[in-house]
Amino acid sequence: MKKFEEKTYETETIYKGKIVQLNIDSVTLPDGNTSKRELIKHPGAVAVIALTEEGKLICVEQYRKPMEKSLIEIPAGKLEEGEEPKTCALRELEEETGYTTDHLQFLTSFYTSPGFADEIVHLYFTEHVKPLEETPPGDEDEFVDLLELTLEEAEQLEREQRIHDAKTAYALLYLKLRQQR
Amino acid sequence: MKKFEEKTYETETIYKGKIVQLNIDSVTLPDGNTSKRELIKHPGAVAVIALTEEGKLICVEQYRKPMEKSLIEIPAGKLEEGEEPKTCALRELEEETGYTTDHLQFLTSFYTSPGFADEIVHLYFTEHVKPLEETPPGDEDEFVDLLELTLEEAEQLEREQRIHDAKTAYALLYLKLRQQR
Repeated sequence: MKKFEEKTYETETIYKGKIVQLNIDSVTLPDGNTSKRELIKHPGAVAVIALTEEGKLICVEQYRKPMEKSLIEIPAGKLEEGEEPKTCALRELEEETGYTTDHLQFLTSFYTSPGFADEIVHLYFTEHVKPLEETPPGDEDEFVDLLELTLEEAEQLEREQRIHDAKTAYALLYLKLRQQR
Repeated sequence: MKKFEEKTYETETIYKGKIVQLNIDSVTLPDGNTSKRELIKHPGAVAVIALTEEGKLICVEQYRKPMEKSLIEIPAGKLEEGEEPKTCALRELEEETGYTTDHLQFLTSFYTSPGFADEIVHLYFTEHVKPLEETPPGDEDEFVDLLELTLEEAEQLEREQRIHDAKTAYALLYLKLRQQR
């Protein structure tokens, strides 16, 4: 669907980094006027709702520099170049939590900030995890702690804003709904 | 919570635009090594889950340049400088949909992309809307179409990926859960 399409007549790349690229697109609007759009290009990401045998949600706590605080989130990570989302989801689960699985079910995907970024999160689910004998090394500049939470504990952490991101908020509603079926 | 804190020893502002600012922070990691973080600063946003008298979800369709397609989303928009989230939520509801309300209930807030951006979305709910006699003018470079959807219609549009963003996906789970209570 291209309703109200904005046609680009010029693209200026301001910055190309490890994770994000910033472009300024000059566009023609549906009424013929012009405007500029600030666009963040992102490789895309995955996230995993993983439940232990006891039904606890596997989470990781890590420092999130944009907010200058640590957040508790479901395991997640960026797609590497050419990487399949499902492969990435398994890799991030293993690296961040030390758990693995051979049952990874695709749930849904969503754009996180459609107004200015093309980041998409591919979300997976598993309730069949087993601990790895050895956790594979993750990114060398990433420090995470593992937590296993009941849904009630996770909801309490959400009220305290220590869980405070869109994908984990979505995961908690998903689990709540699943409990009621 | 500052667990695994990354201390900034240098900040470089690459770009400061209408919506986003891009900083590169040089940081000291918990193990004493250093790294760089690409950080998008964003003013924050609001979104509104608004139901008509018949229980239909009020949505807007608009072109989303980062994805080069139009998406159907719940009404949302950026905070203006110094603007209260609730004031902004009412303004965006009025400008984008032509509806107003005097019952706007705060639901939750979440960071959309905690890995690289500080954007937060403040989410509100109302089931008491009434049409304005005249829709106030919105942003001059914004073109939106109004839709009123049953939950089933919205879920079908989500399967077709015409609804495809985190806040609207969250809204649909919220409404589903609410239906079951």
